[in-house]
Amino acid sequence: MSEQFDAVDVVVAKRDGHRLTDAQIDWVVDAYTRGVVADEQMSALAMAILLNGMDRAEIARWTAAMIASGERLDFSGLSRPTSDKHSTGGVGDKITLPLAPLVAVFGVAVPQLSGRGLGHTGGTLDKLESIPGWRAALSNDEMMRQLEDVGAVICAAGSGLAPADRKLYALRDVTGTVEAIPLIASSIMSKKIAEGTGSLVLDVKVGSGAFMKDAERAGELARTMVELGTDAGVRTVALLTDMSTPLGLTAGNALEVRESVEVLAGGGPQDVVELTLALAREMLDAAGRPDADPAAALSDGRAMDVWRRMIAAQGGDPDADLPVAREQEQVLADADGVLTTLDAYAVGVAAWRLGAGRARKEDPVQAGAGVEIHARPGDTVRAGQPVLTLHTDTPVRFGRAREALVGAVVVDPQGTPGERAPLVLDRVAAG
Amino acid sequence: MSEQFDAVDVVVAKRDGHRLTDAQIDWVVDAYTRGVVADEQMSALAMAILLNGMDRAEIARWTAAMIASGERLDFSGLSRPTSDKHSTGGVGDKITLPLAPLVAVFGVAVPQLSGRGLGHTGGTLDKLESIPGWRAALSNDEMMRQLEDVGAVICAAGSGLAPADRKLYALRDVTGTVEAIPLIASSIMSKKIAEGTGSLVLDVKVGSGAFMKDAERAGELARTMVELGTDAGVRTVALLTDMSTPLGLTAGNALEVRESVEVLAGGGPQDVVELTLALAREMLDAAGRPDADPAAALSDGRAMDVWRRMIAAQGGDPDADLPVAREQEQVLADADGVLTTLDAYAVGVAAWRLGAGRARKEDPVQAGAGVEIHARPGDTVRAGQPVLTLHTDTPVRFGRAREALVGAVVVDPQGTPGERAPLVLDRVAAG
Repeated sequence: MSEQFDAVDVVVAKRDGHRLTDAQIDWVVDAYTRGVVADEQMSALAMAILLNGMDRAEIARWTAAMIASGERLDFSGLSRPTSDKHSTGGVGDKITLPLAPLVAVFGVAVPQLSGRGLGHTGGTLDKLESIPGWRAALSNDEMMRQLEDVGAVICAAGSGLAPADRKLYALRDVTGTVEAIPLIASSIMSKKIAEGTGSLVLDVKVGSGAFMKDAERAGELARTMVELGTDAGVRTVALLTDMSTPLGLTAGNALEVRESVEVLAGGGPQDVVELTLALAREMLDAAGRPDADPAAALSDGRAMDVWRRMIAAQGGDPDADLPVAREQEQVLADADGVLTTLDAYAVGVAAWRLGAGRARKEDPVQAGAGVEIHARPGDTVRAGQPVLTLHTDTPVRFGRAREALVGAVVVDPQGTPGERAPLVLDRVAAG
Repeated sequence: MSEQFDAVDVVVAKRDGHRLTDAQIDWVVDAYTRGVVADEQMSALAMAILLNGMDRAEIARWTAAMIASGERLDFSGLSRPTSDKHSTGGVGDKITLPLAPLVAVFGVAVPQLSGRGLGHTGGTLDKLESIPGWRAALSNDEMMRQLEDVGAVICAAGSGLAPADRKLYALRDVTGTVEAIPLIASSIMSKKIAEGTGSLVLDVKVGSGAFMKDAERAGELARTMVELGTDAGVRTVALLTDMSTPLGLTAGNALEVRESVEVLAGGGPQDVVELTLALAREMLDAAGRPDADPAAALSDGRAMDVWRRMIAAQGGDPDADLPVAREQEQVLADADGVLTTLDAYAVGVAAWRLGAGRARKEDPVQAGAGVEIHARPGDTVRAGQPVLTLHTDTPVRFGRAREALVGAVVVDPQGTPGERAPLVLDRVAAG
């Protein structure tokens, strides 16, 4: 079959700083999915995109081409409006767990098609799989029924959405081209748009524990995604939130489920509650429920009720005991003073090395492994007081976890106690 | 086996504008040759190098790593000094044919390890293969013996020199990364340095028929290669020469051999003679023969004598009739006036389409096909006078050849006759 373009010409156009035409974009994404454009050609193009950029119309077209590579879901048959949330990933980020049932309390359907963790940030499915009996894989029919009956579903994303993205993501991962904002934005948004949600709230993390280390690039990513969603008819808003220190007091699968249940019971760490409510308000507002009071639904048990039904609908036992790691060790403060730093990235790597995460897709995770946090930046500590508890089933892992934490826990004898810096740094909405 | 580096880290370093370390360069070139670094990783790196560049030390190390991937020749056992020439390729560039025997007249050994043509510029081996009986493939021993006995050899480069370059060149060709000056320079120079020549003269072409269309980039390539040669202990000099119009009056295999023999007989087109002598003087000077008089060796038959011995030593019959194409057509001047343009690229493409060149490595070439030139820029012509004669064995090709020539032959009725612009534009030597 004769092809419309030559891959080299498309690469050369972007290499030389030109816009790609709609026809070039449609062709190259489709031809890559078909295997006509080779991996080595697409990786050269990805590097050229990373270094020379794409404009708003190019990114929108690229995203549309990735959506066109696969199937689309359709939530229009539901009796409820839909709202979805996506986080770019952070350490201790368990917000999806309390957030989905909380928003569903107000008659909004929340479809959370999630993934497993790779690297230093945990995966939502890995966390929920620490609940005995819970299963991540649902058919489209099961998902639709649960959205109608319970209002919230957190399940594995099927392989039918944007297959071009799955192929391209795997390629970018091994070719140093992950960090291209046009490609990150189109990867996330192609799946969210194909999924068919009516509104979307993005939690774009900034800081050491996040994919984006600086606020400027995180803001650019947020703006790009909000534009993409808006252009595709999805009401989209983004919050930029701090990820220099872990979110909440736990990083690890069962540990984070336990903390999420505390939040649903009306307690839990202040920052997790604050971010859950901030995102819930955005989702409810975007879904046409601006008057809803999510804080009340946390304190009066309505969110917990939806949580229990959501877990049970997927085979989980919400009353079952959660797994606990076989071994614990503590990390102690080395001086009297104020904890000034608790580095998110280091804590994420430590939890990962303790067994909470995986290095390769096929690795298992330990349900009980992870890091518990006893003091947060701004807290006064005394020498010898525990700052962290490390959990693992395999004590040989403690050594490597402690290596990750070298320099990550800083106690300043002259420090002044204080409040944590603001959690929500900025809000980006369609302009 | 555990690898010293991760390919992604090397790609990311160059992507982010950092220098690659010596160890990174050594590893990535070696690991790519071994297949440990995948094509899609190397193409991303090549694009990052193209867009972010490499400094002089990086390019030198990259070149050394490519040399280290294969074998090296050693001419030190010869009784003569060696000098080599490399042209970046142009239309009608048959200079190697008279130049090698001419320089050999003065006791300098000239090893010309050459290639076949691909695209619009012809290949030196394709030209010589139009001589009945001549063969390109020599063993290393045969090559050494011919250098000692005759002084000049033009033969196929063995596959043992810089195999990393062969693999990388094929990759660059399909990934839009051919045009990276560090990679062009290291590709050329790795083979020339591995070949072991004592001195080297580079003919860097500039203009429509050349790989480098503008003088600035051609100058940068020339400087980069002169630095690489100098750093490797090879006395290296480069001439920048014009390639906006074809060199000489022929483009095509047997046609160019015939013109080369005219030069060796003391005649031939003025520009071919001028460039042959300019390059010969540089080679002789670099090889320690500054007092040699190459013009005399063209007029008194000494160069022709070496040519005949060189052709015969490789099985060729220097007295045989050369092939002539079965069909000819003429391209006529469309007005009275002065020929102001005879575009090199268009003539090269026309010769290629007539059968002188190949589109794929495995294609055959026609010995007799090509373009003969009857008028040059600055010449006065009359309407209906032949400007070109097209030669091919397959007349169906005339149409596509004429298409290539649309707009390439310009006669200006108000033009003023004049001299051709200077052929040698600049000279670059170690600073």
